[in-house]
This record gives sequence, C-alpha cells and structure tokens, in this order.
Amino acid sequence: MRQPQSLLRGIRDVPDFPSPGIVFKDITPVLADAELFALAIELFRDAAAAHRPDKIAGIEARGFIFGAAVAHSLGVGFVPIRKKGKLPAATLSRSYALEYGRAEIEIHEDAFRLGERVVVIDDVLATGGTARAAIELIEQAGASVVEAQFLIELGFLHGRELLAGHSIRSFLHFESTGMV
Amino acid sequence: MRQPQSLLRGIRDVPDFPSPGIVFKDITPVLADAELFALAIELFRDAAAAHRPDKIAGIEARGFIFGAAVAHSLGVGFVPIRKKGKLPAATLSRSYALEYGRAEIEIHEDAFRLGERVVVIDDVLATGGTARAAIELIEQAGASVVEAQFLIELGFLHGRELLAGHSIRSFLHFESTGMV
Repeated sequence: MRQPQSLLRGIRDVPDFPSPGIVFKDITPVLADAELFALAIELFRDAAAAHRPDKIAGIEARGFIFGAAVAHSLGVGFVPIRKKGKLPAATLSRSYALEYGRAEIEIHEDAFRLGERVVVIDDVLATGGTARAAIELIEQAGASVVEAQFLIELGFLHGRELLAGHSIRSFLHFESTGMV
Repeated sequence: MRQPQSLLRGIRDVPDFPSPGIVFKDITPVLADAELFALAIELFRDAAAAHRPDKIAGIEARGFIFGAAVAHSLGVGFVPIRKKGKLPAATLSRSYALEYGRAEIEIHEDAFRLGERVVVIDDVLATGGTARAAIELIEQAGASVVEAQFLIELGFLHGRELLAGHSIRSFLHFESTGMV
C-alpha cells in the first residue's frame, strides 16, 4: 500500500477545466478516501522527514490541505503562502507569469526564523511558476527551502526546469495530457 | 497544555484588516508554532471524535489547514468546501450575504455517501453566513452535519444564532472587538 501508484484510483481527469482543452487532475477523491489520504500524507511526510525541516510551507489552496496534515504529522509548524491580499500582517510578495496575465502570492515577512529549513508543498507541479515564486518568497523571508514536494508532476509542462537548482520531489508523474 | 487559552499567545490582533475599523484575529502564529498547532488540532480532533464522523469538511481557505490535519489525525477522509469556480467536477452551490454584497461557495455533488456523518471545520465563526451555507451544502449533498467547529468565535457577531438547531463548538470566545 506504500506504492504511490495506489493513489491513481483517487485521481480523476476532468476535461475542459478550468478552460477548454485543459484536462484537470482532480485530487478530491484522494482526500475523501481515508486510506488514500493517509497514503498521500505518509508519502509526503516520509520524504519531508528525510530533510529534517523546521517548518512546512503550503501554497494556497490545495497545498494547505496536504501541507498542514504533513506539518502536524511531523510535529512542526505550518506557514501558509497565500494569494495577494489574504494575509493580514506585513508581507513579502512576488508576482509571476501565468499562461494569460500574472498572479501574485504573499508570505508574512515574519513567517520564519533566520535559517530555518523549509519543505514547500503543493498538490501539482505544472509550469513551476507558482512554486518558483513561493521558493523565492521563503528565501527572501530568511529561510532555506530544502525541498519542494508535489503529489503530481505534469512533466510535459517542464516545471522542473524552471526550478533548476532546487531539490524537487513528486510522487505521480504524467508525461502527457492524457488526451488522445 | 490542554487549555485552549494557551492558544491566545498565537493569536494577534491586526487592526484595519481587511477594511478600516475591523480588528482581524490573525491565527498564523498558532500555525507556525509546532506546540500550539498540535494543541489546536488536538482540541478539534477530540471534539470531533466524540461525534464519530465519517468525514471532515473544511471551508476554504483556513478551514483547509485545520480540517485536513484533523481528518488525517482521525483517519477519515476530507472534503473541501470551496469558493465558486474552484472545484472541477459537478457541484452544488449556495450564495449568501456578506456585509457588502454576496459570496458563493460550492461542494462536489458526489462528495459524500448518503447519510455520512460530517464535522465541518473553519477557523473563525463570525456572522455565521459562510458556515450556514456550508452546512446547507453538506446536507443537500446527502450527508448529516453532526457538529460545526471553530477555533475562534466572535460572539458579538451572533453567528451562533444564525446556526440555531445545529451543534456548534468553538475553543476561544471573544465577546468584543478588542477595540477601546
């Protein structure tokens, strides 16, 4: 049951979401199934523990689900990386390119102690734009990203290349859109 | 250390967020502190366990952080209740009044099996509008809300009255805005 491939039965393809021609990997069936959710958290937790993190950072919003459960399971603190305008205290922010337009994410500037070791978690590694912005924010806040971890990697979008120089770990790899 | 009041040192008041005159209860220091985060999850988990839930539902976005860790800790599945347009498959949706305007939240229509027992979790009970919409969605999806749980209850906003008829549990109660 420790095989990441077991998670595949909890991932469903939803065509044309969020826009026509895109096949969305819906992970909500993994969350809803106690056994699959436990497996996903176990995979993240074991991979994260190997890096002895001081904190887990999760990227809004699905990264909160995996990241918070992993942080609790490891007995460390959790730091949310949020969309612009959601964090109440003083923030650092970073904008990045989307397919159309730009987005912006933020972190509290006092989120870390200097030099803390951080594993950053999200559900999907796609183009890598969000993850790269998150890594830059964490490092700007004075911490060190020891690994970025994802449940799913969409290899055909080459996000790993955008994150060159960082340790990347993902548990399920898709090398095509799944469309015929 | 099982005292909810211990959490107070991880909650900071941020004045004039998200708008002038509002004092926002920032819970990110609870999340960042391993001991306080563990205490918060333990309080939720013990309160939820008493109701033998089949699933935990968390309300986007801070409810994901607490709800997912509680679900994992209890060994049950997790269901996200999301802002409109975020869930990829077929959804049920509900709009509700905000102070200015309206908001809309959604749930996957296949999120539950008929009759499942659900504890719904969020960070703050304020006016209760979001929580009531979440409860209605869960019940519309065929499950039963056995309790709604919150880290913080802003009693002066009377959210509990809007949720009359439902079991409500919160761990920290504020009876004034904290403003002089």
